Amino acid sequence: MGEFELIRKLILPLAGETRSAAVLLGPGDDCAIQRLPAGHDLVFSVDTLVEGRHFPVGYHPRHLGWRSLAVAASDLAAMGAEPACFSLALTLPESSQDWLGEFCQGLGEAARAFGLSLAGGDTTRGPLTLSLQVHGTVPAGQALRRSGAGVDQLICVSGTLGEAGAALDYLSVLQPSEPVRQLLTRYHRPQPRLALGQALRSRATAAIDVSDGLMADLEHILSASGIGADLDASSLPISPALRELAGDRAVALALTAGDDYELCLTMAQDDWQQLPDAVQAELTVIGRTRAQSGIDVNGLPPDTTLPATGYDHFGAQP
Amino acid sequence: MGEFELIRKLILPLAGETRSAAVLLGPGDDCAIQRLPAGHDLVFSVDTLVEGRHFPVGYHPRHLGWRSLAVAASDLAAMGAEPACFSLALTLPESSQDWLGEFCQGLGEAARAFGLSLAGGDTTRGPLTLSLQVHGTVPAGQALRRSGAGVDQLICVSGTLGEAGAALDYLSVLQPSEPVRQLLTRYHRPQPRLALGQALRSRATAAIDVSDGLMADLEHILSASGIGADLDASSLPISPALRELAGDRAVALALTAGDDYELCLTMAQDDWQQLPDAVQAELTVIGRTRAQSGIDVNGLPPDTTLPATGYDHFGAQP
Repeated sequence: MGEFELIRKLILPLAGETRSAAVLLGPGDDCAIQRLPAGHDLVFSVDTLVEGRHFPVGYHPRHLGWRSLAVAASDLAAMGAEPACFSLALTLPESSQDWLGEFCQGLGEAARAFGLSLAGGDTTRGPLTLSLQVHGTVPAGQALRRSGAGVDQLICVSGTLGEAGAALDYLSVLQPSEPVRQLLTRYHRPQPRLALGQALRSRATAAIDVSDGLMADLEHILSASGIGADLDASSLPISPALRELAGDRAVALALTAGDDYELCLTMAQDDWQQLPDAVQAELTVIGRTRAQSGIDVNGLPPDTTLPATGYDHFGAQP
Repeated sequence: MGEFELIRKLILPLAGETRSAAVLLGPGDDCAIQRLPAGHDLVFSVDTLVEGRHFPVGYHPRHLGWRSLAVAASDLAAMGAEPACFSLALTLPESSQDWLGEFCQGLGEAARAFGLSLAGGDTTRGPLTLSLQVHGTVPAGQALRRSGAGVDQLICVSGTLGEAGAALDYLSVLQPSEPVRQLLTRYHRPQPRLALGQALRSRATAAIDVSDGLMADLEHILSASGIGADLDASSLPISPALRELAGDRAVALALTAGDDYELCLTMAQDDWQQLPDAVQAELTVIGRTRAQSGIDVNGLPPDTTLPATGYDHFGAQP
């Protein structure tokens, strides 16, 4: 069996296992065919991951499989979209059956967890690079965008921040303590906030996922909406694990570290009060929008220094 | 200006220049949004091109821009789809402004020629690799597939075959003769048969684009449909330029060389006779399907040897 025959043998079953009614025709023809619910728009995003740049050389293939789909699916969450299917463009050096098996296992776990059906793709030989394009649907006109935030609205984030970024210091730890394990899980197995994103449709005025760091990503909302923000450092949601491990650095990590894949959003005060309890429980109010551009962070611990801007997100949409 | 700032500055205008009503939201948010015509399905395909594997190292960036989109769009033609938009995942080593400018020019020419709007993408640093995903639409249920061919139907191809493959021998010729120039144009500037594909909806019983060579691609139709074929070598459409340059090798090239991006399709005899003249004029009947699997080629010139199968298409959908 040739190597690419083997790849097909390992990857193709994922298309069957994750099959959904939305995919009329999966891999194996010139194109895949997706049918959208009537009155819905297609929402899609592509993310490329290059070995040694977006994940460490020698990164565990099972984590890579999960993580690559989670990162892409997080963009669907930020639009309030329901997940439908994805395509995988996989460029591979020579690789072992073990590596491929583990990769497919992680990818399959993520596909099933997120409700994304493998619909098509391409496999080529070359330096390890993955491009995943995820497809979701939203009722026409209801997608959350970055540009809808108004002045004097609440700024909220989901979950807790800074853990995935802090995990980078512990990637090579062989016997992690419990708090370290918690950070590493945030890095290796990000959980895109798909249900939350859908619940925020027609409630949030703007949304983005936190991939590059809270300040950098919030800045995308603010500049797209032509406004600014005041943040309250003491309100930032920081886990006990991060406080224990990072100490005084926890606030800076929460503000600037990437890879958390939480949602950051804006919402009118009235809409916040009418949120279902279960949705409110997933969110923390961390500040308010204002007319003047820029971001001011109040209540920073002494000696905290923040970079002028967050991580340079050249991975953005071209 | 940072390099990735420059890339965005050069690529992003393409989104505006190629904007269509189908794209509600282009690059710059977490996702792009596409609206489909009511009663239509989404048809999509992704193709990855790796430098040194799918195009020569140092390949002219303007040709690369055109070719990469044309190759992807050809999959839409094979489904009978109307082109809508595309995404570009571009992994780049350090590159000059000249290179990027030329690449964008070729890509833009192709996008306008094919009616494909740049809707989104991702730009990353790494070894030169492109993944383009093209989106088209078809009236629900009318997409052409590989699996619909019946027994005793006509096998047709569009245009002429073998020229792009023959061009590989001339890529480094500095002052090409007129017939060589014609071959090189077929290689550098493939023309996906988009209008023809749409005209064949509800007429052709199966279709595929000739990317890997006629026999290899026809075999995909035949195996998906559970049948075989008899081809007539003397019917193969071969251009005067290829006859002049390749002599006795022309027939073998027409049967096995890739990169032509013509359509190969099957059709009932009755439907052939009712084709509009303009559509018939673009096609050549080269054989008939049969119940017995495999492909027999009748009337081969003496001493013609064909490989047992065509080029190993590991670039197929995984």
